[in-house]
Amino acid sequence: MSSSTVKEIDYFHADPETVRKACRAGHIVNHTAGMATGYIQANLVMLPASLAADFHEFCQKNPRPCPLVGMSAPGQYTVPELGQDLDLRTDVPRYHVWKDGKMVDEVTDIRHYWQDDLVTFALGCSFSFENVMTACKVPLRHIQTGRTVPVYRTNIECTPVGPFAGPVVVSMRPFTSANIIRSVQISNEIPLAHGAPIHVGFPHEIGIADVMKPDYGEATDIMANELPVFWACGVTPQAVLAASKAEFAITHAPGAMLVTDTNHCLA
Amino acid sequence: MSSSTVKEIDYFHADPETVRKACRAGHIVNHTAGMATGYIQANLVMLPASLAADFHEFCQKNPRPCPLVGMSAPGQYTVPELGQDLDLRTDVPRYHVWKDGKMVDEVTDIRHYWQDDLVTFALGCSFSFENVMTACKVPLRHIQTGRTVPVYRTNIECTPVGPFAGPVVVSMRPFTSANIIRSVQISNEIPLAHGAPIHVGFPHEIGIADVMKPDYGEATDIMANELPVFWACGVTPQAVLAASKAEFAITHAPGAMLVTDTNHCLA
Repeated sequence: MSSSTVKEIDYFHADPETVRKACRAGHIVNHTAGMATGYIQANLVMLPASLAADFHEFCQKNPRPCPLVGMSAPGQYTVPELGQDLDLRTDVPRYHVWKDGKMVDEVTDIRHYWQDDLVTFALGCSFSFENVMTACKVPLRHIQTGRTVPVYRTNIECTPVGPFAGPVVVSMRPFTSANIIRSVQISNEIPLAHGAPIHVGFPHEIGIADVMKPDYGEATDIMANELPVFWACGVTPQAVLAASKAEFAITHAPGAMLVTDTNHCLA
Repeated sequence: MSSSTVKEIDYFHADPETVRKACRAGHIVNHTAGMATGYIQANLVMLPASLAADFHEFCQKNPRPCPLVGMSAPGQYTVPELGQDLDLRTDVPRYHVWKDGKMVDEVTDIRHYWQDDLVTFALGCSFSFENVMTACKVPLRHIQTGRTVPVYRTNIECTPVGPFAGPVVVSMRPFTSANIIRSVQISNEIPLAHGAPIHVGFPHEIGIADVMKPDYGEATDIMANELPVFWACGVTPQAVLAASKAEFAITHAPGAMLVTDTNHCLA
C-alpha cells in the first residue's frame, strides 16, 4: 500500500481493530491522536515479572497519573479485555526500550525485545477526555494550534512503592472561566483518563517556575481571560522508570498509544 | 418553653419535621442554616395562580438559579412530597410579603396574608452543597467567620418568560486550587442545589466591579492563593419579582428557609 493511499484512510472514525492492524502492518508509525475516537487509548509499561507486583501496587496507589485499564499475565502479549486480536508486540506505532532507567532504543515492533517474563500495564490517557471536550465544544488550544500538549514535572511526589517513586507529571490546558468548570465536569466523569484536574491557577504552587517552559511537549499561550488547568499525565510512569532505574522496561513512545476496544464513555 | 431551653435543642441533627414544628410554634424565627443537615432547604416563592404558569416555565428555563424541588396546587398550603405534615403558612421562620415588586412586610406567619389562589414554588438552596462541602472538609470562609455569604447581581440575564425577567444573582465562596476542583465536583452532583458554579476567577466578566462590595450579604476575604467561585443563587427570584413588579407575592426571608423531608444526596 503506498503512503498516499494510506493517508486517505479515515482513522478518526475507524474502529480500534482497524487502527491496531494498521500499526501492526507498519502503516501507522507515529502518534495516534484522534484515531478511533470514543475508545480508550492507553499508555503502556512492560516490566519483568519480578517488578510487576510493586508496579501494580504503585498504579493502585497513584490512580490519577496511573489509571490502570488493563494488565497482562506474565509473558502474555495479549490482553483480551482490551481487544480480542491484540498483539502488544506490534500494535503500538512506536515503542521506547529502557535499560537501567535510560531509554536505549526506539522501535516500531518489539518482537526481538520480547521476554517471556514481561508483564504489560495499560494506563488510561488524556485523549479520552480531550475527545469528550472536543465533542462538547470546549476548545483545546494545543490541538487548534497543531502542537503537543505542554507537560511538566511537579513538586508533588507519587506515593512510592518498592523501587518505584518520582514526581507526578502533569499536562496543562488553558481555559476561560466557563470552560474551567466544564473541563472539571467532563474529566471528573472519566477516572480512567486521569479524572478531574489536580490543580488550577497557581503553577508555582506545584513547582512549575515558568509555565511557558514545559519539561516535555510544547508551550501553549494562556490568554488574559484564561487560567492554566493541570491534569496528572501518563508521562509520570516514564519519569518514575527513570528515577527508579528499572533494569528493563518497554513503554510506548509519547503520543503513540495502544488503541483499545474499551469505549471510554462506558468504562 | 423558655428561650434558654430552646437553645439546647440540637437542630443540626434534628429531623426536618422537628425543625418545621419549631418554626410553626415560633421557637425558630431567624435563619435555618445548618439545621436538619442532609435535607434540602428550599427558597419559597408564592404567587397568584394567574402568574403561576409563567413562573413555572421561568424556573424550567433557568434551572441554575431556580432549581424547582416542589410546587403546590393552587390554594393548597401543603406539598406532601416535601413533608407530610407541612404547612407552608407557618413552617418557615420568617416571610417577606411583596406588592407590585416591593417588599411591604416581614412576618413569621402568613395565615392572614393567605389567598385561595396562591401557588407555592420551592427552589433548592446552596445550604445543600455547603453541607456536603463541610462534610468533605472543604472549608467555607463565610461560615468559619460567622458571616452571611456574599451575593451579587450579575450582567447575566435570566431567560425571560412572560413578566419574569432580571439578572442572575450569584453567591461567592473563595477557594484554593484544590478546593476549587472539589467544589465543582461536589456541587455538580447536586443540580437541585444550583449545580456546578457558573463562574470562577474573573468577577468583572460577569459584571461585578468590586468583589469586596456585595449587593447582599457580607464581604468575604479572598486570600492570595485563592480564587472567587460563583454559584447561581436563590436570591435571583426575589430580584426577578422586584424587576417584574409582580402584583403580589410571598417569599421566605433570606436565610430563613423551608426545611424539607427530601434528602439532598438522594434527590
